[in-house]
Amino acid sequence: MFGQLSLRREGAVAIIEFDYGDDGRALFGRLTAEALLAMIGVLDVDQACRAVILVGRGADFCPGGDCGERGPSDLIDARNRGRLATDLFRALSRASKPIVAAVEGRVVGVGLSLVALCDWVVAATDATFRSDAIQAGMLPDLGLLWSLSQRVGMARARQAMLSGMVIGGEEGRRIGIATEVAPSGEALALALTAAYRYGALPPVGVALAKAALFNGTRSFDRATRLELDLGPLARQSADHGEAIAAFLEKRPPSLT
Amino acid sequence: MFGQLSLRREGAVAIIEFDYGDDGRALFGRLTAEALLAMIGVLDVDQACRAVILVGRGADFCPGGDCGERGPSDLIDARNRGRLATDLFRALSRASKPIVAAVEGRVVGVGLSLVALCDWVVAATDATFRSDAIQAGMLPDLGLLWSLSQRVGMARARQAMLSGMVIGGEEGRRIGIATEVAPSGEALALALTAAYRYGALPPVGVALAKAALFNGTRSFDRATRLELDLGPLARQSADHGEAIAAFLEKRPPSLT
Amino acid sequence: MFGQLSLRREGAVAIIEFDYGDDGRALFGRLTAEALLAMIGVLDVDQACRAVILVGRGADFCPGGDCGERGPSDLIDARNRGRLATDLFRALSRASKPIVAAVEGRVVGVGLSLVALCDWVVAATDATFRSDAIQAGMLPDLGLLWSLSQRVGMARARQAMLSGMVIGGEEGRRIGIATEVAPSGEALALALTAAYRYGALPPVGVALAKAALFNGTRSFDRATRLELDLGPLARQSADHGEAIAAFLEKRPPSLT
Repeated sequence: MFGQLSLRREGAVAIIEFDYGDDGRALFGRLTAEALLAMIGVLDVDQACRAVILVGRGADFCPGGDCGERGPSDLIDARNRGRLATDLFRALSRASKPIVAAVEGRVVGVGLSLVALCDWVVAATDATFRSDAIQAGMLPDLGLLWSLSQRVGMARARQAMLSGMVIGGEEGRRIGIATEVAPSGEALALALTAAYRYGALPPVGVALAKAALFNGTRSFDRATRLELDLGPLARQSADHGEAIAAFLEKRPPSLT
Repeated sequence: MFGQLSLRREGAVAIIEFDYGDDGRALFGRLTAEALLAMIGVLDVDQACRAVILVGRGADFCPGGDCGERGPSDLIDARNRGRLATDLFRALSRASKPIVAAVEGRVVGVGLSLVALCDWVVAATDATFRSDAIQAGMLPDLGLLWSLSQRVGMARARQAMLSGMVIGGEEGRRIGIATEVAPSGEALALALTAAYRYGALPPVGVALAKAALFNGTRSFDRATRLELDLGPLARQSADHGEAIAAFLEKRPPSLT
Repeated sequence: MFGQLSLRREGAVAIIEFDYGDDGRALFGRLTAEALLAMIGVLDVDQACRAVILVGRGADFCPGGDCGERGPSDLIDARNRGRLATDLFRALSRASKPIVAAVEGRVVGVGLSLVALCDWVVAATDATFRSDAIQAGMLPDLGLLWSLSQRVGMARARQAMLSGMVIGGEEGRRIGIATEVAPSGEALALALTAAYRYGALPPVGVALAKAALFNGTRSFDRATRLELDLGPLARQSADHGEAIAAFLEKRPPSLT
């Protein structure tokens, strides 16, 4: 347990749980961000970990950032807080393990930023997503400006961020915030299924693919260069050789 | 009344109305573009204005550009016309006030370019959207190449621009051109509701957010830098302080 | 007949057919890529050709790349293969003629890369799309990193590439991989209709528009510059003059 986070394992899957406590105002705060940043860093180089799940312990995935920490302050302090957010944004974006969100209840503010950076998002039908930063005289943070518009298109991203509208689980799936919808209370079970599926993939291929998906999807020239630079590396992996051999011998592959 | 435009106020909302006259060939022409460019510039620095609505006076939002102005001409003249279009494109994209489109009837050519740059688009169910530039041996203008592909994805943008297909109101909402659909004849009423909702937001937050949404959504590095540069400014606004105080005191905020 | 490709004409439409033979393991291989690259180059400067269709001869559009060619090899050889893929990616992306895919059956791996680069994609209802590269310890190639995320948004592109999920014809249309859906067995017939429709457009306008859509959709500044640089050229085309004259004289235009 670190701040509001706990970490447990189910085989090769690491489950990071946010615990906002029972006092009604515990929200995602600075200590939680620091702990999550450290955990992602550790898991990223842990070869026994093949996928990560983010989940809330209580009724909500994340009810928002901690307002008690957010009052006016001097610019240096505000920039330092901002730097922590951008460090976390960068760490999640560049992670070499697939990250799955299991979403029940509310996802507000920084919670939406976390979800928007995940590879697979299971949302309960009664989950709700909302960006409330502009209503509170702030800017969306943790990369939401970029991640949400990449995820659902610029029009819907602008609409969600400017209007602060509430987006339900099904609507979230329709526009692409969520990957799949679960019955209420079963988001974690489906997230585990997705995480195990990711965990069964060749890890070298996944790490190279995650790097390529982060770096190469927005520019023709970058995509071309990544194909030439990373593609041959992937083809030299033992897993690739085994996959081809298995195909030619008409048997299932035995991957790492 | 300037050229084909008129401007009126409903509280903090400015309504810009296109009037194409009754003669059957009045279309969006050079004078209209110049007047719209000037109006957007004036409203953008008018602190009493919190949101802008674009609407057509007659049956159509915009039946297209004025063909009488579009025949072959020398390259210098053509570039000057092009510069007016790109100036208008830039002004609408960078506007610090939310812009809402109230769409009845046809939206053709330059009309689609205008709509694609708006923050919120209410379309009547019987509205139709169409890019006809390539059919007429022209290129789409007023930024449509960029704005439509950002808005609905590259595949659908290519399809709409290359094929000149007609897109109905509901289909427009499904793919993201429109934000919501209204019964025929009620687009302006719903647009006013959206504009008032925008008008109730903290103006400093909105202006910074609009700048960030314009500049920061397409690049990870730009989004990161904007969070660090503009985020702290937003947090120093009086509105942000009031929003936090209201949250902690469990009362509604009293924003600017 | 070149390798696995054959080329035939139906008026101004060129039909390139992939023939994977009957031996059960013939897949899209190196010779096919080289032949397709050459054909696209030839058709691109052939003024009698106004649109191109890609279609599979047998049950599948493309069951994947040739595994017999894909085993581990030295890096120089792997880079040379990669260069062929990026050359083909570039040629298809920059083609000045509209390219239509007629899809029946399976579209796997490199087949999905081809489809993602087409201007119009007709998919039979029982067609299936799948990216299997990461499962096989490879990276997606032929530009899929870029083209699929541009086409369906980054979230769905990541999901499809990382998970290797199978996407049906209707689902493909819903998210934007396919442009329209055809009854089983009728994809080519509908693709011909789309190709003839493209073929009736002004060719100078189409070539400039294809260049602009390739180069100008991802950046505000590029879109602005292309409007100023290519827009005036398009307006000087004979087709544009005729389109305007026809509009003003209320008659159908007689284009090139």
